[in-house]
Amino acid sequence: MADIAPLDAPLDLTQDGPTLTAALVDFPSVSGTEKPLADAIEQALRLLPHLTVDRFGNNVVARTHLGRAERVVLAGHIDTVPIADNVPSRLDENGVLWGCGTCDMKSGVAVQLRIAATVPEPNRDLTFVFYDNEEVAADLNGLGKVAEAHPDWLKADFAVLLEPSDAQVEGGCQGTLRVHLRTEGERAHSARSWMGSNAIHAAAPILARLAAYEPRRPVIDGLEYHEGLNAVRIEGGVANNVIPDACTVVVNYRYAPDRSPAEAEAHVREVFADCGVAEFVIDDQSGGALPGLSHPAAAAFMKAVGGTAHPKFGWTDVARFSALGVPAVNYGPADPLYAHKRDEHVRVERISHCEARLRDWLTA
Amino acid sequence: MADIAPLDAPLDLTQDGPTLTAALVDFPSVSGTEKPLADAIEQALRLLPHLTVDRFGNNVVARTHLGRAERVVLAGHIDTVPIADNVPSRLDENGVLWGCGTCDMKSGVAVQLRIAATVPEPNRDLTFVFYDNEEVAADLNGLGKVAEAHPDWLKADFAVLLEPSDAQVEGGCQGTLRVHLRTEGERAHSARSWMGSNAIHAAAPILARLAAYEPRRPVIDGLEYHEGLNAVRIEGGVANNVIPDACTVVVNYRYAPDRSPAEAEAHVREVFADCGVAEFVIDDQSGGALPGLSHPAAAAFMKAVGGTAHPKFGWTDVARFSALGVPAVNYGPADPLYAHKRDEHVRVERISHCEARLRDWLTA
Repeated sequence: MADIAPLDAPLDLTQDGPTLTAALVDFPSVSGTEKPLADAIEQALRLLPHLTVDRFGNNVVARTHLGRAERVVLAGHIDTVPIADNVPSRLDENGVLWGCGTCDMKSGVAVQLRIAATVPEPNRDLTFVFYDNEEVAADLNGLGKVAEAHPDWLKADFAVLLEPSDAQVEGGCQGTLRVHLRTEGERAHSARSWMGSNAIHAAAPILARLAAYEPRRPVIDGLEYHEGLNAVRIEGGVANNVIPDACTVVVNYRYAPDRSPAEAEAHVREVFADCGVAEFVIDDQSGGALPGLSHPAAAAFMKAVGGTAHPKFGWTDVARFSALGVPAVNYGPADPLYAHKRDEHVRVERISHCEARLRDWLTA
Repeated sequence: MADIAPLDAPLDLTQDGPTLTAALVDFPSVSGTEKPLADAIEQALRLLPHLTVDRFGNNVVARTHLGRAERVVLAGHIDTVPIADNVPSRLDENGVLWGCGTCDMKSGVAVQLRIAATVPEPNRDLTFVFYDNEEVAADLNGLGKVAEAHPDWLKADFAVLLEPSDAQVEGGCQGTLRVHLRTEGERAHSARSWMGSNAIHAAAPILARLAAYEPRRPVIDGLEYHEGLNAVRIEGGVANNVIPDACTVVVNYRYAPDRSPAEAEAHVREVFADCGVAEFVIDDQSGGALPGLSHPAAAAFMKAVGGTAHPKFGWTDVARFSALGVPAVNYGPADPLYAHKRDEHVRVERISHCEARLRDWLTA
C-alpha cells in the first residue's frame, strides 16, 4: 500500500479508514517534523464546506457550527516516535497493518479525518483537533500550546482522544506527582564513622514506609482506579571511604482522579511526615482527569460504542481537557501494548469498527 | 630554606632533621615521579659503610648486618600527593615548616635517613625501607611490590612506619571490607506498579539493619578499637516512570584486627542474612594488623618513645607488614590532620623529638 499516498499528492479523505491509515503512515511525521502532514491535513479539511479551520503552529483545529445543544471534541496527535525501519506500511494477509504510527496513533487520526469528511451534519457540534509533539517533552505538546493560546478553540462538553485503547473506552486518567525526598548527615572518614552521621542510613524509615504502603483503589464513575507510591530512584554516596552526608529518594505517586494535585501533595507529605526528611522538593506534578462518564454526552457515547469502560492508569492528554473543564476518555482502534514498538501494528477491522461506532453516536 | 638542596646537589645526611626535611620537600616526588629522589637516597645510603643497599624499581632497602638478636624495620614512602602551590618549603617564625610532603611524610623520611646516617651500631639490626606510590592505587604500592618480589628484604621482628601520627604511637590498624549488596525486582510502568516489584523498596531491611547496627569496640593489647558498618553508596532506578528492578547498597565494614578477613566476611553475611539480598559481591578486602605491642621489641620501643599508644582506625601499610608476620606501629612527627592539605605543615621540634626518641630506643 506504500504507493497510495506519495508525499506530493493531496490527502484523499474519500479512501476507507484502513487505506487512509496506510497513507498517513507513509507520510512520515516524527515529532518535530510534522509540518508537511499538518499542511496536508489543513488543506484536506479546508475542502470541506461544513467546517471552519484554524491553525496554530503545526496544530489544526476544525469545527462545525450547527448550533447543537452539545459540542464534542475528537482529538489526536499527528507525530510519531522515530521510525525503526518500519515505514512504508505493510498490510499482511491477515488484515493487520504494520508500520510506525499504525498503532500510535495514525489509525486514530484516520478515524478523525473520516468522521470529518463523512458526517457533515452531526447531532452534536464537532471540534477536530490534530496536534504535534505529543511524543516528546510535555512543554512542546501542541495540545497544551493550543489550550494556552486559544482555549476557546477547545471549548466543549466532552472529548474523545483517539489514542490506542484496543477499541475500548478508557475513562479519565490518574495524576502523577514526583517528589525528591532528601536526607542529611555529616561527612566523616568511614574508618572513623562515629565522627559523622550517615544520610543513607537516615533513609531507612522512608524505604520502610514505602515498602509497607497500601495504595488506594477508589471506584469513580464505576471505574476502579489503582494508585501507587514508589521509589523510582535512589542515590547517595560521596566516595567509598566517606560517610555520606546526603541521600535522595525520588518517589512517584500515581493518584486516582478524585484527588486534586494539592491533595496528592498533602498526602505524600503526611506519609513521610515522621521519616526524617530534611528536604521535600516537588519535581513534577500533573493532575489526573475524572472519567466524566456520568455526563449525558459520555453516556450516549458509551451506549453507542458498547463494551465496558476501563480506568486509565497512566497519565494522558485527557488531563489537558480535564484541566479545561472538559471530561474526556480515550477510545482508539489499536492495542496500546504495541505503541512505540518496532512491530507496531493495528488490525484494520478495528479501524472500521471505531469509525462506525463514532458515526453511530454522532448521527443517531 | 628553599636554596639548601638544589636538585643537582647530593643529599646531605649530616644536616639536622628539620633542614633535611626541607631539602626533601624541595626535591619534588609526586607519585609516579619518584625516580630522582630514589636515586638520591640510594646514592646517599651507599656512602654509609655499615649498610648494604638494595634497590627494586624506585624502592630502596638498606640494612645493617650486625648479628643482633632482633631486627626492626623503619619504613616510609617517598612520594607525595600533587603539589598545590606549596613548594618550595617555608619555615615560619614559630618553628613550623610548611610545604607539600612536610607532614605526609618527608619529615618521617628525614628521621629515617638521620637514624641511618647517625646510628652505625644500633642495638637491634635495622632495615630501612623507602618506597614509592603509596598515595595512589594499592596495586602500585612500592612496599607491596617489594613484599611480593623480595619478602626476605623485609624480614624483621617489628616495624615502625613513620607515617604522621603526631609523635604518638598508633598500633596496628583496622581492616576494611567493601561489599555490594544487590536487591532485585521486576520492572513495570510506574502507573501500573502492581505489575512489577520494587527493588528499592526491597532494600528497606538492609538500611534498617545498618541504622540499628551496634559496632564492636574490642580492646586488643590495651588499645580500644572501634568498628563501623556503613553504607557508603546506594544506587537504584531505571527511569522516572519505571519500577526499578535493581538496587545496590555499597557497605563498608571497618573491623578490628582481632578479626580475620574471612571472619569479617562471615560477620557481614550473617548481619544481612535475612534482608532479602539477591547478590553479595565483595569489592575490596584488606585485613587489619594487630598492634603487637606485647612483643619485646615493641615494649622497649614504647618505653623509649613514651606516651600512650593509640589504636589506628584507618587502614595503613602496617597491614602489609602484619601480612608478612611482622607486628607494626605508626610513629611519625607530623599531625595527620594536615596530610594532603594545601596548608600541610610540621612543627620542626617534633622532627627532632622523634629522631631523638628512636635513637634512644636503638642505642640504649
